[in-house]
Amino acid sequence: MEKIILDCDPGHDDAIALMLAHGNPEIELLAVTTVAGNQTLDKVTRNALSVARVAGIAGVPFAAGADRPLVRPIEVAPSIHGESGLDGPVLPEPLIELDGRHAVDLIVETVMAHEPGTVTLVPTGALTNIALAVRHEPRIVERVKQVVLMGGGVHVGNWSPVAEFNIVIDPEAADIVFSAGWKVVMVGLDLTHQALATPEVRERIAGVGTAPARFVGELLDFFGHTYSEAQGFDSPPVHDPCAVAYVIDPTVVRAERMPIAIETQGRLTTGMTVADRRGPAPDDCTTWAALELDRDRFWGLVVDALERIGDPEAATAATAANGAVA
Amino acid sequence: MEKIILDCDPGHDDAIALMLAHGNPEIELLAVTTVAGNQTLDKVTRNALSVARVAGIAGVPFAAGADRPLVRPIEVAPSIHGESGLDGPVLPEPLIELDGRHAVDLIVETVMAHEPGTVTLVPTGALTNIALAVRHEPRIVERVKQVVLMGGGVHVGNWSPVAEFNIVIDPEAADIVFSAGWKVVMVGLDLTHQALATPEVRERIAGVGTAPARFVGELLDFFGHTYSEAQGFDSPPVHDPCAVAYVIDPTVVRAERMPIAIETQGRLTTGMTVADRRGPAPDDCTTWAALELDRDRFWGLVVDALERIGDPEAATAATAANGAVA
Amino acid sequence: MEKIILDCDPGHDDAIALMLAHGNPEIELLAVTTVAGNQTLDKVTRNALSVARVAGIAGVPFAAGADRPLVRPIEVAPSIHGESGLDGPVLPEPLIELDGRHAVDLIVETVMAHEPGTVTLVPTGALTNIALAVRHEPRIVERVKQVVLMGGGVHVGNWSPVAEFNIVIDPEAADIVFSAGWKVVMVGLDLTHQALATPEVRERIAGVGTAPARFVGELLDFFGHTYSEAQGFDSPPVHDPCAVAYVIDPTVVRAERMPIAIETQGRLTTGMTVADRRGPAPDDCTTWAALELDRDRFWGLVVDALERIGDPEAATAATAANGAVA
Amino acid sequence: MEKIILDCDPGHDDAIALMLAHGNPEIELLAVTTVAGNQTLDKVTRNALSVARVAGIAGVPFAAGADRPLVRPIEVAPSIHGESGLDGPVLPEPLIELDGRHAVDLIVETVMAHEPGTVTLVPTGALTNIALAVRHEPRIVERVKQVVLMGGGVHVGNWSPVAEFNIVIDPEAADIVFSAGWKVVMVGLDLTHQALATPEVRERIAGVGTAPARFVGELLDFFGHTYSEAQGFDSPPVHDPCAVAYVIDPTVVRAERMPIAIETQGRLTTGMTVADRRGPAPDDCTTWAALELDRDRFWGLVVDALERIGDPEAATAATAANGAVA
Repeated sequence: MEKIILDCDPGHDDAIALMLAHGNPEIELLAVTTVAGNQTLDKVTRNALSVARVAGIAGVPFAAGADRPLVRPIEVAPSIHGESGLDGPVLPEPLIELDGRHAVDLIVETVMAHEPGTVTLVPTGALTNIALAVRHEPRIVERVKQVVLMGGGVHVGNWSPVAEFNIVIDPEAADIVFSAGWKVVMVGLDLTHQALATPEVRERIAGVGTAPARFVGELLDFFGHTYSEAQGFDSPPVHDPCAVAYVIDPTVVRAERMPIAIETQGRLTTGMTVADRRGPAPDDCTTWAALELDRDRFWGLVVDALERIGDPEAATAATAANGAVA
Repeated sequence: MEKIILDCDPGHDDAIALMLAHGNPEIELLAVTTVAGNQTLDKVTRNALSVARVAGIAGVPFAAGADRPLVRPIEVAPSIHGESGLDGPVLPEPLIELDGRHAVDLIVETVMAHEPGTVTLVPTGALTNIALAVRHEPRIVERVKQVVLMGGGVHVGNWSPVAEFNIVIDPEAADIVFSAGWKVVMVGLDLTHQALATPEVRERIAGVGTAPARFVGELLDFFGHTYSEAQGFDSPPVHDPCAVAYVIDPTVVRAERMPIAIETQGRLTTGMTVADRRGPAPDDCTTWAALELDRDRFWGLVVDALERIGDPEAATAATAANGAVA
Repeated sequence: MEKIILDCDPGHDDAIALMLAHGNPEIELLAVTTVAGNQTLDKVTRNALSVARVAGIAGVPFAAGADRPLVRPIEVAPSIHGESGLDGPVLPEPLIELDGRHAVDLIVETVMAHEPGTVTLVPTGALTNIALAVRHEPRIVERVKQVVLMGGGVHVGNWSPVAEFNIVIDPEAADIVFSAGWKVVMVGLDLTHQALATPEVRERIAGVGTAPARFVGELLDFFGHTYSEAQGFDSPPVHDPCAVAYVIDPTVVRAERMPIAIETQGRLTTGMTVADRRGPAPDDCTTWAALELDRDRFWGLVVDALERIGDPEAATAATAANGAVA
Repeated sequence: MEKIILDCDPGHDDAIALMLAHGNPEIELLAVTTVAGNQTLDKVTRNALSVARVAGIAGVPFAAGADRPLVRPIEVAPSIHGESGLDGPVLPEPLIELDGRHAVDLIVETVMAHEPGTVTLVPTGALTNIALAVRHEPRIVERVKQVVLMGGGVHVGNWSPVAEFNIVIDPEAADIVFSAGWKVVMVGLDLTHQALATPEVRERIAGVGTAPARFVGELLDFFGHTYSEAQGFDSPPVHDPCAVAYVIDPTVVRAERMPIAIETQGRLTTGMTVADRRGPAPDDCTTWAALELDRDRFWGLVVDALERIGDPEAATAATAANGAVA
């Protein structure tokens, strides 16, 4: 079992990442934290709680974190995720309540409460919460097993010619996280542009036949539409679950060790994850870039998780009904 | 009574600022927090506790905070403050223990526990803790009365041609603090270079005749020496107490409202507090620059505080002796 | 006699600088070159030729230079100088023709044709031409006597909080000129904001009673209006003639030697002339800042030049008339 | 016949580029200009003249240009090209003399003297001369056919993780050249790292059996050694002739149109040629990146040129001997 804290900004692909983490038996989801990014903190936090209901997640603390990047003004992505941050499906009223703690405190306390080397952080949004946690409690750097993040790319961009959205909206936070000294696996656009939700993929998901699978289908419909309009994709790249997939099974992704640093001062390159591929990585290098995806096994993991999740609301209703009978 | 939290990195002038805050009857010292700057966090924290003993401070929580700047590598100032951060006098073993909380938590909890508009933050080191507190709990921005900080200057520098040490070692933190929207009074080099500990000043302090006054005298001897060597000053500028003095009595300092922003990207100007003096400040401007010091009243406040502090160790010893007799 | 090349972008104050250089008996005007700045190259070049006619300048080569800054896009200043670059008076048709050479070639050839140490460059616009000349023929750096330029200021700005127009529109050119190794006297806003064309000054000029003096009066009327509107000045600062005045008589201006370098990378400070005033200038320092103006003697030079210029058109007409008679 | 001006800093691969340009019958070499880069201007200029003797080049003007980058300090590459800039073979005394003109003037005059759209600029060093020429005579931008330059790369670097030497040593000049509006074909590391002088290639060259071919062999021996030591290459990439090859026959190289701009302000990325590959190039895009090399035809061009060059010194000696006899 891999213990993870998912730090996210749902976001269509964040929602699917959350479902994958919840449905996969290899993952123990310790906590879910939210951060401003795809939309404002209020919106992405509510989205996370709604997705928890859809997926039947209970007993996991959810906490809200930073409502803006570390230094720069906030920038959100309605062109991709719509006004709610999760446009497309109807979002049900959340059933669970937020943890009272700040995301940063929840992250720090969770990491410090578990054995060293056992907790993986999986940020799929801006790195603001993680950076604040590192500065608030530097001991987490040694204690965490690894950081497997969705963001960046080896010199490929989406929000600018060479920068990816999660990194470019808070480059100073990314700088802190990439240079902290812990193992960082950058699951960037190199990889996630291989995780396209093609018609075949969407058929496999539809085939699951449950309410959560239909929810995912509606997410992909909307996401596919905006990615086609805004960035010319035939099928939308489903970024965030790739990071979860790497934690579940690192052989689904080929990653390569290489020095990666964040450009924070460029005129054209701010937010770039600058990788040095000129030679073999030095021995003290702790940063990795995910480069190749086993598409088939990746989507297999997603479909499998949806199957395991089943139809939570129906189950609840049935239980309630049974209860009423009993 | 003005309630303050002193966030400092003692540091010779920080030590005097702490004594002024403790000794002055207009100040209620709610908490003392420390931050890496003049020396490493461990050193400045221990220094703060030692000064607490010298000054007889009890019942005030002391907490350690950030051990490095927000984004950039740490830089300390042994050329000014020596290897200990408080070279010169013998530093006594602390009598009080650190609060268990992180400085950022202590700051946030203290601010939120008091009435809105009653607590003044007085940072006299790098602004790392304050910046982290703002991002951790943004509601403090509205709740704090004002931030009266020692740092910066209107286009005058000491650590570079146009940047002052406290700002240049953590310009991103300074950017966060100056642009947060609360009232910021920058007590910078314009002012503190008027607060020179001249021979006359040092005589007045020596005249107090107590152990704390002798301690201050020894601080000024060392500080005077390094400022003469490193920056060519005849008498050392005693920066940090100026910020406390402004809180005690704003009429001791003439401050002017003007837009001030932090340069974070310059080749020659990073850490500069860029003030716009081209016209009257716009109505929504919340930043002020301290420009003129009433030297005589300022030093009067320092001497008065020392007199009120008296000789705490002697008093304690006497009490103990009396106790023994009784 | 001081030999100068005036490199300008007329511009109201450039026009007056040209008249001062022409009318003063201590100045030998070797060449006039133009550069884009206050307005486009075409406009400022035509303006220079028109002013030559007004002032009766003949036998001096005029050449056009760079039509844009070295690296950055062009920016002009119609808010100060109007659409023509010299709005206000009626501009007469030029009588003389442009030299066929590029300004950079004219500058290089003129400098190399005179004895070493005899030619002063007086740039009163962006430093593009001078920078190009330095890179084209590096030997001019040793051969020129000095560069006395209008631009910059000791941490005071007009086009941004800390940058002056001539420097900020081409900071890379300024970097080249300030760091070339020759003597640079920066006649910046510190000085030129002391050269205000007050009502008394304008009366003295009106008192000359000639057509060129009336032309200057009309320039100052327009300039006064825009400076009042755009920057809130009661009387307009007449920048450029101050540089010429320093060449005529360095005792009219108090200048101080200090290291000055150009910020080219700042977010808020690009184009700032960063002066280091923390201690005495090192022995190899070649940059000076003009700090104090003897206002009375300065305006005396301007009025005297106008008196010596007299009424060239009337004189020509008279000569023509006489010639017709003879 | 393609008319070219070769602007170079020999430099091992520059030397081979010069030979290719001279030996190929499709190229009319109008002028050769030099610029500081691989070594100082004096050294690379002498090297160019020595190579001219080896290759038997006569009747082509050679002129020296900029002795340093536009704005930044000079940086040379002895780790790759040795102390002379052309270490390895014995360099013969030049037989021809430099043209008296500055490279920038020679470039401008040559371009303006030929029909519009007929002259290709082939810079294989820093872009300082070309940038100065553009600013000195902006009309060359419309008049030149194209600029085919060796430098940069699509997000691959050699002198830093993402910057190539020719661009990073003068990024401001590169910015000027890439944004000028003319057609720019960037023959960068993407391409030139395909042009490796493998043992087979070196055998083909040795097979020519002439003194110039032996000279090239000795160049490649040294170059191979430094590239192996400094950058871990098995066989050295022979960059500069690729640009000449593109001019000779554009089908030897596959180039793609894409927006390319130069980063001049990055902390980690200065000198990067930032290409935007997120979608099809806009219609007004004038920049191209060379991506794929037909290795066999490329080396065929080089070998063919060497064969056509023959043995100029022997020929001269023979002629002289014959002459002596006659």
